Formats: sequence, C-alpha cells, structure tokens
Amino acid sequence: MSRTTGFRRRVRLGPGSEFDLIGSFLDGGDDLPPEVVVGPGDDCALIEGGRWAVSCDLSLEGVHFRRNWLTLREIGYRAAAVALSDIAAVAATPVATLVSYGLTPDDLGTDGARELQRGVEEACGSVGAVVVGGDLTRSPTLLVVDVVVLGRADAPVLRDGARVGDEVWVTGHLGAAGAALRVFLEGRAPEPALRSAYAHPKPRVGEALWLAERESLHALIDLSDGLGADAGHVAAASGAGIVLEAVRLPVAPAATRVAGGEREAVELALSAGDDYELCMAAAPGALDELRDDFESTFSVPLTRVGRVVEGRGVYLDAGDGEPEPLHDAGYDHVDFRGDAGA
Amino acid sequence: MSRTTGFRRRVRLGPGSEFDLIGSFLDGGDDLPPEVVVGPGDDCALIEGGRWAVSCDLSLEGVHFRRNWLTLREIGYRAAAVALSDIAAVAATPVATLVSYGLTPDDLGTDGARELQRGVEEACGSVGAVVVGGDLTRSPTLLVVDVVVLGRADAPVLRDGARVGDEVWVTGHLGAAGAALRVFLEGRAPEPALRSAYAHPKPRVGEALWLAERESLHALIDLSDGLGADAGHVAAASGAGIVLEAVRLPVAPAATRVAGGEREAVELALSAGDDYELCMAAAPGALDELRDDFESTFSVPLTRVGRVVEGRGVYLDAGDGEPEPLHDAGYDHVDFRGDAGA
Repeated sequence: MSRTTGFRRRVRLGPGSEFDLIGSFLDGGDDLPPEVVVGPGDDCALIEGGRWAVSCDLSLEGVHFRRNWLTLREIGYRAAAVALSDIAAVAATPVATLVSYGLTPDDLGTDGARELQRGVEEACGSVGAVVVGGDLTRSPTLLVVDVVVLGRADAPVLRDGARVGDEVWVTGHLGAAGAALRVFLEGRAPEPALRSAYAHPKPRVGEALWLAERESLHALIDLSDGLGADAGHVAAASGAGIVLEAVRLPVAPAATRVAGGEREAVELALSAGDDYELCMAAAPGALDELRDDFESTFSVPLTRVGRVVEGRGVYLDAGDGEPEPLHDAGYDHVDFRGDAGA
Repeated sequence: MSRTTGFRRRVRLGPGSEFDLIGSFLDGGDDLPPEVVVGPGDDCALIEGGRWAVSCDLSLEGVHFRRNWLTLREIGYRAAAVALSDIAAVAATPVATLVSYGLTPDDLGTDGARELQRGVEEACGSVGAVVVGGDLTRSPTLLVVDVVVLGRADAPVLRDGARVGDEVWVTGHLGAAGAALRVFLEGRAPEPALRSAYAHPKPRVGEALWLAERESLHALIDLSDGLGADAGHVAAASGAGIVLEAVRLPVAPAATRVAGGEREAVELALSAGDDYELCMAAAPGALDELRDDFESTFSVPLTRVGRVVEGRGVYLDAGDGEPEPLHDAGYDHVDFRGDAGA
C-alpha cells in the first residue's frame, strides 16, 4: 500500500519542488490504526477494513477558480465533482459529503450561498450522494469550499497494482478543461464544449463501478493532474514504467483547435489537469471486449493509450523512434495557479 | 433527530441573521440514505448505522486565528483540536483525520508546513487519532486549514435528548479563551493561563467517553459558541428550555480578572466561544456521585450549572429574581471575526 502520494497528488498546484517536499513531510510516519487500511498515498483513505473510502478536496478562489469564469453554482458543482472523482478513482460508491464553506462578506448574500449549495447538491445528486454536514464561516477575502466525500468501498481498486505487460486505458477525451483554462487566461471566453469540460466535470463513478464489476482492474486513478503526471503516480506506486502512445491519445477536438497543432494537442492532453477522467491498467485484451458495451452504455469513449513496462517513470512514444521520458512532474502545463499568489 | 443546526452551529462567526439564514438553507432537504442516521444538525454526522461519526472544521487566517497571536504549530494544533472536539461532543472515539491545507507562498516554506503538520499531529496524537490523508494547495492570501475527523461511535450521545428536570453540567472552566481573545484584540499579550486556553484547547474525548460509559447522558455538546448559545442548541434540539445559574458558572479566575467584575465575568463565561469544554444534560443526581472520581481522574472540574425546564430558550438565573431570557443567539460576545472581513 503506497503511502507516498496522498498529499503529493496535488503537487502541481504549487511552485514545484517546494510543494513536493512539503507533500513528503505531510505524508508523515504515523503508524496507522487497524481500522485504516490505506492512509496517505491514494486518491482516498480507506478505513474500517477498506469498507469506507474518504477523501477531501479544497477549492480556493484564485487558485482553482475565478468568479468571473464560473457562476457560484458552477463553483459549488465543480468543487464537489472534483471531490467525488476521488471516490470514483478507487471504484467506490459515494454516499455522503460534508462541505466547509468560507464565504466572503461582500459578495455572498444568502442567494450566493444558496447557489453554491445548489451546485454542490447537483454534483452529489448526480452520483447518489447527499450532503450530511459541514462547516460555515466567514472568510475575509477568498471564497473557500472544501468538500469531504465518504463512499462505500466494497472492492476498492488502488493505484499500485499495475503489472508489467498491462494495457493502460482512459475514459473520455483529454485536454478540454486545460484548453478552457488557457482560453480563460487569455481573457477570452472558451467555446461551450471547452467551458463545459472545465465547469462541469463528470465524476466517473458509474463508469468505474461498471468496469470494475466486469473486469479485474489492476490499477485505477482519476486524471486530476494531467495524464502524464497521473500515469506517473500509477507507475511510481506500482513500481513500474508506463509508455504512452501519442497517436492513441483521445484529445478533445476542441482542445486540438486551441492547442494549434497535433503535437501541441498531445502536449496539452498529457499535461493539462482537470480532466477528471479515469485512467486504469488491466491485463492485455481484458478491456477490448467491454469497450463497445461501455461506450454505448455511457456515451463516453474508452481508449487504450499505452502499456506498463519494466522500469520506472512515464515515456511518450511519439511514433518516430524510442519512447522519450516525460518530465518528472509531468509536462509543464497551463497553470494559472502559479500566478495566483501574485 | 435534529437537522437544523449542522451549519448553524457556526452562526456566531458571521454577522448574525444573514448567516442564520444561510445556515438554514444549507441544511437542505435531501432525503438521507440508509447509511446516514444523523445528517446536518449535530456536532457530527453519523453514518453506517451510527457507527462512524464524521465532522469537519474550517480554520481561516484572520477569522479563527491571526499569525501574530499563534505559532504555526499552535495554528495546526488548534485547527485539529477544534475538529476533534466535535467527536468528543458525541462521545465517540477519534480514529482518523484528513487535513486540507491552503498554504500562502510568501511565508510558508517547508518548515512552516512542517510546523503546521506537527501541531495537527500533536492534537491528533493526544486523543489517539492519526492523519490518513488530505489535500494540499497554494492559497493566494490566506492560510486555510480544514480538518476532517472520523470517529468510532459505539454509543453516540446527541444534543437532542435533554428532558425536563435534567441537570445541566459542564466540564472545566469557562471564559478563558474568550478573555485571551479580548486581550489579543486590545493589542496586548494575554497571561499564560489565558493564552494556553486559546491556543491549546483540549478536546475532551477521554472525559466524554468516561462519563458516557458510567452514566446515561441525555444530551451532549461541546462549547464552541459559548455556553449561552450552545445550551441554546441543546434546548432547541431537545424541545425544552434551560435555566443557567449565574452563581454556579465555573468562570476561569484569570478570565474574571480580564472581565473586570463578577457580573462581567458571568457574561464572558456565557458568551465567549472557544472553550471546547463539554456541556451535558443528565438525570438529577446522576453525575453527583461521579464528580469526585471524574475530577481526580482528569484534574478537570465537573460542575452543575443549571437545569432543563419546560418551555424553550435559555434563561439566566442571576439570583436576584426571575430568570431572564438570554438573547436569542447568545450574548453578544468578543467577536473579532466580525471585523475580520474589513
């Protein structure tokens, strides 16, 4: 059971190495009590012999969203969807959420709070979870939304079980949320398909359960940090390497238009975060026969994008020679978070 | 099962009626899934047939602490202790915590994060809980610490079971944290006993379990909002009134010195939050015979402060006539939070 990436999963949000280091401190060294089977190091902690998955996800104004990009309802929806995605990422079933709000006095009257909560409830309702509690406080300057999710984990799938020879698959299209962010940062309005990918990510709860029930998934993660970085988490936790094939990456068509070219689109798909699609490793051929059924059930593509190999790290096979290693922390990517502190 | 105060518990943190209203919205109207036996409305949500208690507590710079008042380690300790107190407040046993950090870039290097986490671990370790996960992100301006606590709830005690004729008891001394806050706000340094009460509240986990194992507690709450307001929560949830006797209130001696007089000290003890002591209702005489043993075991006083009566609301018996109703939302109290948004 990996215990090395619980906090580091969000490394990209910081200025780089400093946050890496901080993450490693925070993972600490406490002995875990018997109720806890997975502590820091996966998308969720698993408690009570693994029967409950629990995770929290902090959304801050100026870091994860800006008010002029999203409505309050969308801010609430997105904060909850991102947290729920962590439950999908271990193939658990969301049950209950708690939400901590820090509301600014100036611009959040009762209607604002209601809109935020409506968004949270919309996301929770879409996957059968309900809000059971939370905390509410005034915030001096920043809108703060921290969402805690608890889920039933009858047969959790972690990120550490990928085996050499496995295939690597992803759901959905990649890069659209990152492309939206890029357009937002240029001061423009992204086209609807891109905006929707950023504002309304769909936690792939049903998809994860459907797949895990039908086939043995060796490793599973959600794509919050970008495929390059998240595949890196799977590779590191599993003690293996992963080769991604550029030609296979299901880049969202609208993202390709923003990226400006095929090569740039691949970079975006590898490096942009916030896709909240699933990435999984499974035995060769295992998912091939499920694909048609999956795609017709969910109207979401299921695509083989690479393979698990001996070694460590993530490599990109661009089709023009030997696979090249990706940068350790994933590609540098559109990251307005780095500017947020200024 | 009350569902009306889950968010409203923190009402005092806001400017009053607006936050009351917001809290009532946030309590929502979702049907609860069968796993959830108590949703919004108590110190914790209880899930899995009541066997797990879960709560979250958001601490924001400028609202719940200021950096020039507390060290980073104390900020971490306090954020976790306050969250753990919610587990004590239902007589559950803390097991696991998750912590969401929003760290500012300017003043939080790795040492700062480490100090925060040490404080969190100190509080958790003091009651046998461990940090199993969390989230880490950059914050543009404010230090943010949100602590989620999960606890085993073998026999949870809620706030809604007080019966007419019950006695109302509290642990510890009251008003010291509030007095510290008052001194801080005057730009001075509180004396050590006051500072410690504010910086190092002790979650009364062992005390709550000890009492609940030995005697039937009809209602239990922790004193986060001040005795007046928290007794009000018990009264409202239980459908009864509570009379507090001024002469019995265990005001901290150092708080009396800050308050400036006996009457002012009573006001402070009723209105100041952040005591994180326990308040409980039990049958007449039930706790009398436990008191000596409790006080020698924990070196913490256990004091009868009032009684449950017919009616609604909280009344103060000042010993000079009929009990007078306390202001609905508790006394106005030292509240630097109201200024924090300026």
